[in-house]
Amino acid sequence: MAFRPLKLTLEYDGTGFRGWARQPAARTVEGALREALDLVFPDWDGLAVAGRTDTGVHATGQVVSVRAGGGPPPERAREALNAALPDDVAVTAAEVADDSFHARFSAQSRTYRYRILRRAVRSPLLERRALWWPSRLDLGRLDAAAALLPGTHDFTAFTPSETQHQLLTRTVLAAAWEDRGEELHFTVTADSFLRHMMRTLVGTMLEGRDLAPLLLGRPRSAAGMTAPPWGLCLERVDY
Amino acid sequence: MAFRPLKLTLEYDGTGFRGWARQPAARTVEGALREALDLVFPDWDGLAVAGRTDTGVHATGQVVSVRAGGGPPPERAREALNAALPDDVAVTAAEVADDSFHARFSAQSRTYRYRILRRAVRSPLLERRALWWPSRLDLGRLDAAAALLPGTHDFTAFTPSETQHQLLTRTVLAAAWEDRGEELHFTVTADSFLRHMMRTLVGTMLEGRDLAPLLLGRPRSAAGMTAPPWGLCLERVDY
Repeated sequence: MAFRPLKLTLEYDGTGFRGWARQPAARTVEGALREALDLVFPDWDGLAVAGRTDTGVHATGQVVSVRAGGGPPPERAREALNAALPDDVAVTAAEVADDSFHARFSAQSRTYRYRILRRAVRSPLLERRALWWPSRLDLGRLDAAAALLPGTHDFTAFTPSETQHQLLTRTVLAAAWEDRGEELHFTVTADSFLRHMMRTLVGTMLEGRDLAPLLLGRPRSAAGMTAPPWGLCLERVDY
Repeated sequence: MAFRPLKLTLEYDGTGFRGWARQPAARTVEGALREALDLVFPDWDGLAVAGRTDTGVHATGQVVSVRAGGGPPPERAREALNAALPDDVAVTAAEVADDSFHARFSAQSRTYRYRILRRAVRSPLLERRALWWPSRLDLGRLDAAAALLPGTHDFTAFTPSETQHQLLTRTVLAAAWEDRGEELHFTVTADSFLRHMMRTLVGTMLEGRDLAPLLLGRPRSAAGMTAPPWGLCLERVDY
């Protein structure tokens, strides 16, 4: 059977999933995708993902690679997979990839967006989509903190101290706050992200702390809170 | 006990509610609000609502009037009610109203918005928030249909034939389609709306039908489908 390397782009609402990675007794995005792949392709292997998102984190541009054996041609694989997937996850694009393409190792950068709702009252329609933050925020101070991020830093302070990461430096390509009226968005593009890095950057900035000393490899306890997952969305992966 | 007339503005995600109106064995927005009023005010009466939304319909600017006896002052009633309400409904404003204020009878107009997602693939993050419409839409034709709506018409064709409405004419003040990239929004302001009127207008327009003959008092069977409730949102009520 001929195996075709596929690049799939996924959107999902993270609310109902225990994160990306397959677990024996929990509903996960990877688990849902594997079940759909089983239904659509007679055979497949080599599933890889660009960003292993946590419980509650959303995605509009998650990318996976998979080698598909048989089944519908790529131009119809998208529809077939979407018919097999539950409502809270969808394949937005399915393309034939190069043989060497690997969703994780081929990625040049990931872009995450964190949404904050800054109004006096919580929003039922943005519940589990944005962090509600009724206190005042100093946008000048947030901008100044974001300006420190581009470059290569040791992000040890921004990931749990019991870590599986070997390398704790990451290179940030862009980081910016964006004023969207009632919402404030924080977007970061980096080569890759440590576990909880984006959420701990947001939490630390919301506490108004000075980021500069924290980018030099301090313990986790030196940084601030880990912001909740539901404000976070994996927006795109560039190759 | 002194009773204070209050005007409350509500936002809700309609997904988990069997519509506005209280029912014995179903979760409804009115039921949730009544439970919160019971917790916050020693006594209250005279609850009235501007728009009795159906199952699955959302609101960002629903308005209710209520006479509150005792309890917190108006400036703290909002926080107290929000602490008592479930996550999918919130009071976004609580103001003291005139004695004569009645959320339904004092209303000059209601504005509803219908959201359509026009892309090839369904969106997990807009599931139950917008109608997914992957087929091509002729925006020129939709605009021409909307232009027929302002004025006073007989909307009998746009409400179920077993109706409780006495009067079947309504006055539309404004109606327009708005191109928002992947989304298309249809907004209508009218003195009031018949049951399913907004959804049947949308369904009939999406089918590409000519609205002109349908605005003269035709039977329900002459108009098109009733679009699903989850694309619809009660956006504001003007007094």
